[in-house]
Amino acid sequence: MGDQRLSAQRISSAVINRLPRYYRYLGDLLESGITKISSKDLAQKMGTTASQVRQDLNCFGGFGQQGYGYNVEYLHSEISAILGIDNKYKSIIIGMGKLGNAIMQRITFERRGFHVIGIFDNDPAIVGKHLEGYTVLDIAELQSFCKENKPEVAFLTLPRAAAPAMAASLEEYGIKAFWNFSSAYIKLKDPTIPIENVHLGDSLMTLCFRYTNKNRENDKNISG
Amino acid sequence: MGDQRLSAQRISSAVINRLPRYYRYLGDLLESGITKISSKDLAQKMGTTASQVRQDLNCFGGFGQQGYGYNVEYLHSEISAILGIDNKYKSIIIGMGKLGNAIMQRITFERRGFHVIGIFDNDPAIVGKHLEGYTVLDIAELQSFCKENKPEVAFLTLPRAAAPAMAASLEEYGIKAFWNFSSAYIKLKDPTIPIENVHLGDSLMTLCFRYTNKNRENDKNISG
Repeated sequence: MGDQRLSAQRISSAVINRLPRYYRYLGDLLESGITKISSKDLAQKMGTTASQVRQDLNCFGGFGQQGYGYNVEYLHSEISAILGIDNKYKSIIIGMGKLGNAIMQRITFERRGFHVIGIFDNDPAIVGKHLEGYTVLDIAELQSFCKENKPEVAFLTLPRAAAPAMAASLEEYGIKAFWNFSSAYIKLKDPTIPIENVHLGDSLMTLCFRYTNKNRENDKNISG
Repeated sequence: MGDQRLSAQRISSAVINRLPRYYRYLGDLLESGITKISSKDLAQKMGTTASQVRQDLNCFGGFGQQGYGYNVEYLHSEISAILGIDNKYKSIIIGMGKLGNAIMQRITFERRGFHVIGIFDNDPAIVGKHLEGYTVLDIAELQSFCKENKPEVAFLTLPRAAAPAMAASLEEYGIKAFWNFSSAYIKLKDPTIPIENVHLGDSLMTLCFRYTNKNRENDKNISG
């Protein structure tokens, strides 16, 4: 397994981007009690081709046997190891407004590689509230909390204007990775710190482009 | 401009994926009163290279002048036209729980190409509530609402288990594009209908992979 993990560092970002989807689909199969799957069936679930699936999984040493298919549990656990899901990195959430609330409710952090150890807000109306088994802490306690509990990752669900300064403070307090929902551009002293940006507005504009262009194509076909 | 729109159909999906970011950055520049920008400065804001920026924008006929830079307002409005932002497609939101609430609060739909005309839920505790200027309608009214108001796009913020059947109904009611937050796999009768999936869990696993792999690289450098 060690070798496969190392090989993950040399694979293309296109393959890496598909790994979470493989992991989710395999998890669904496991839950439905399916133990074997062919590259063809896996491809169908992924909306791709069997040859693409074989190529992707070959990047990690290939877990399938010709004419036999993939062992779902084994493949699931190998991809889990490559993604690093078992690390369950200590994480904090900054901003417990509507978005922070929705994230808490929707995401099973432990199954995605993270363990939330504290949730924070600066609004007196929110601080002290109980949410999904946590109590919202005052942002004033953030520095001492980080010193004591050493979280590694921060999820930024606070408003855009407040995000860059907060990210800079968090870097000072020892945060080493960011999940950024604020749609603010985050610039840190250490440029190697991973920042995963979620831009919901960009996703919506992509839909707008796809739908608009589909309609333009149709118009062209009708008129031409 | 007509020609540039048509050329948008032939450009790579990598460029298309960057268009919303160009659009956002140019919008920020406009708001700060900046009227001209060089490809170098735009590249810096985008976290890419000047040559990449020139290449991208050349796909749309090139809006810059050598040694002069880009006219921010013109470029912004051209990209807006390519994305189809001005269409402001009539949209409905299905699911006004925490996630639906957060989306309503965070996204300026009109600036992303959509106009929300109705929001729906099936929970009697939520139906009738007022949110951001809308009243939550009962899902039982969905079919007659669609018949009367002809929305084209649906945003699915309902729970995963309910999403596939709801999407099938919405296709029957005339919905032509979907923004899907449910993390359910949506399969429609018409496979050409655009579905933009937002998988927050995948984004989080990507962060897990990036952080885990960075640490592995560091370990290797220390031990090697």
